[in-house]
Amino acid sequence: MTQAAPTPAPGPRYTRLVAELPASVPFVGPEAQERAAGRPFRARLGANENGFGPSPRAIAAMAEAAAGAWMYGDSLSHDLRNALAAHHGCAPENVIVGEGIDGLLGNLVRLVVAPGDRVVTSAGAYPTFNYHVAGFGGELVCVPYRGDAEDPQALIARAAAADAKLVYISNPDNPMASHHGPQVILDMLAAVPPGCVMVLDEAYIEFAPDGTAPAIDPDDPRVIRMRTFSKGYGLAGARVGYALGAPGLIAAFDKIRNHFGMSRVSQAGALAALHDQDWLAATCAKVARARARIEAIAAENGLGALPSATNFVAIDCGGDGALATRVLHELAARAIFVRKPSVAPQDRCIRVSCGPDAELDALAEALPDALAAARG
Amino acid sequence: MTQAAPTPAPGPRYTRLVAELPASVPFVGPEAQERAAGRPFRARLGANENGFGPSPRAIAAMAEAAAGAWMYGDSLSHDLRNALAAHHGCAPENVIVGEGIDGLLGNLVRLVVAPGDRVVTSAGAYPTFNYHVAGFGGELVCVPYRGDAEDPQALIARAAAADAKLVYISNPDNPMASHHGPQVILDMLAAVPPGCVMVLDEAYIEFAPDGTAPAIDPDDPRVIRMRTFSKGYGLAGARVGYALGAPGLIAAFDKIRNHFGMSRVSQAGALAALHDQDWLAATCAKVARARARIEAIAAENGLGALPSATNFVAIDCGGDGALATRVLHELAARAIFVRKPSVAPQDRCIRVSCGPDAELDALAEALPDALAAARG
Repeated sequence: MTQAAPTPAPGPRYTRLVAELPASVPFVGPEAQERAAGRPFRARLGANENGFGPSPRAIAAMAEAAAGAWMYGDSLSHDLRNALAAHHGCAPENVIVGEGIDGLLGNLVRLVVAPGDRVVTSAGAYPTFNYHVAGFGGELVCVPYRGDAEDPQALIARAAAADAKLVYISNPDNPMASHHGPQVILDMLAAVPPGCVMVLDEAYIEFAPDGTAPAIDPDDPRVIRMRTFSKGYGLAGARVGYALGAPGLIAAFDKIRNHFGMSRVSQAGALAALHDQDWLAATCAKVARARARIEAIAAENGLGALPSATNFVAIDCGGDGALATRVLHELAARAIFVRKPSVAPQDRCIRVSCGPDAELDALAEALPDALAAARG
Repeated sequence: MTQAAPTPAPGPRYTRLVAELPASVPFVGPEAQERAAGRPFRARLGANENGFGPSPRAIAAMAEAAAGAWMYGDSLSHDLRNALAAHHGCAPENVIVGEGIDGLLGNLVRLVVAPGDRVVTSAGAYPTFNYHVAGFGGELVCVPYRGDAEDPQALIARAAAADAKLVYISNPDNPMASHHGPQVILDMLAAVPPGCVMVLDEAYIEFAPDGTAPAIDPDDPRVIRMRTFSKGYGLAGARVGYALGAPGLIAAFDKIRNHFGMSRVSQAGALAALHDQDWLAATCAKVARARARIEAIAAENGLGALPSATNFVAIDCGGDGALATRVLHELAARAIFVRKPSVAPQDRCIRVSCGPDAELDALAEALPDALAAARG
């Protein structure tokens, strides 16, 4: 005699994978923090946004495109894709445009990670990548930082040992702002195990010293590079990222991506931003000055700032993670939004984004009291 | 003696599911067709876009938001979500904002469909929904149209028989423009089997007769309603959709969605569009006039037009699917972009979107020759 299957309840039956996922989210946004606090931040320096703003040409292009927003965006992002290919000296077939690096990372994980598949990253590296890996049932294998930098050799060794499908590295690194020179990345690439793809997240590459980005054969099937208009180009809210990779991997995105997912207004803004390299260069100069200012503010407070190849600076609060967390909370209580690394010993730092003078003035004003309160 | 596993090739190892997915895409966009033809369309009447355009207030809001595009959008779309809840008389917890209905459908399928799970829809209904079902390994069970309308009773019966996780219906329907009254939808909802969610795609609801949308308890766990700013509000290129559903199902999206995926500019545009209900009403009046014009153009050519509760009209070409396909191609050769249903007998029609007079003039001019060429 067989037992009848129990009748399900009315409503959704989630997949087993979804049922087991936590309800936690990768980041609480600044607006949500402002609503909780009942007041706006004086300085928005926590999300590594680019407060120097996008090119006026990009702003104008978006404003002009708004009236045409009744049309879906081009599903191939043809003009932007071709411009990016020309910019990077590769073929359009090496480029996929997507809804920010976050969206592209989600699709990349979906392409290769089935439940139980392993993915290697650094402990304390990009939480949204980890969120996607968990979201598709992947098993995350974490390698510690080494001297406040990601450890390419250890990552590769772990990828080989774990038979990983993906190995992630950001260069320059978030959240520590460190970077490796091009040969280190090339050596890492040469050692990527068969069946594994190296995810080279270059979101911050425009801020790094010239020559940091290695010359990589765009048809190399072992690597996919992630780039974005969110950081150097100042268009985080437009949601435009792109990936550079071998044509086979790039084409695979077409099997699963949301083909009409790109905002038409954003496509226009990104294209105009790409064509204003002078603005990008001026932005990078402003960012370099802001980095120096943040370092000076840290020094005025007796704190060390880690070297930065990005648009943010990790400030060593001189204690453990608990102290740095208190500093972060005391800054938030003074309407200064920053974030911090999550894993020891990097969690001794707070992470401060570069921004215009007025915001750094607010930071400079608030930090002494915040430090005193955190210590007391 | 065990055999050693073969060494994988360098590069990605796709999941079994992805390896088996076809390379085909749901739609070829009009820009891609224009590039292939080497000339622009005279009339863009194929994607059910709203050529009457968004509210000037939405355009102004997007233009104003462009300068602030250096900031990520609010990950909760708080202001828009709350405005939508007020608009619909439900709680914010009943609303999730996403990157168009396409993006929301993808996430909904991901929440409940594991490989082999069954999903019921109508043969010839929305291809992008089917694309997502296939993309997560779901098994699509199709029910024929009945009298050029979706068949609620047959859909429910099939969902019960197949133990389906989702049953999809669009009301009004795409691609046939037919609609059911509210009681038919309520009767369908009452019969949804346990463990199944009814996906009520109301993308075109603003164009339907008053009272078409049924009053549904927003906390009912058996249904999720899909709405969009792409059609009535004329913001297809902004990529803003939303779903209305029970708080548990709405909250589940937070486990998997791209939290910072919304364009900040689009959030601003949608909010302004929602607050200009007069523009929406004026648009619907323009659409009604355009529907009548399309019906008249059909009649002038001896063709019948099906009744429409949407911003498009299905024109019966008076033959089989092959004839209608030839009409579509002959129209494209005359720079008129339309689409058509894919499944017999609905495929005897072409589907023409409403648009401004100039575009319908171009259609009226081209259709006689296109018909003659298609018949000859």
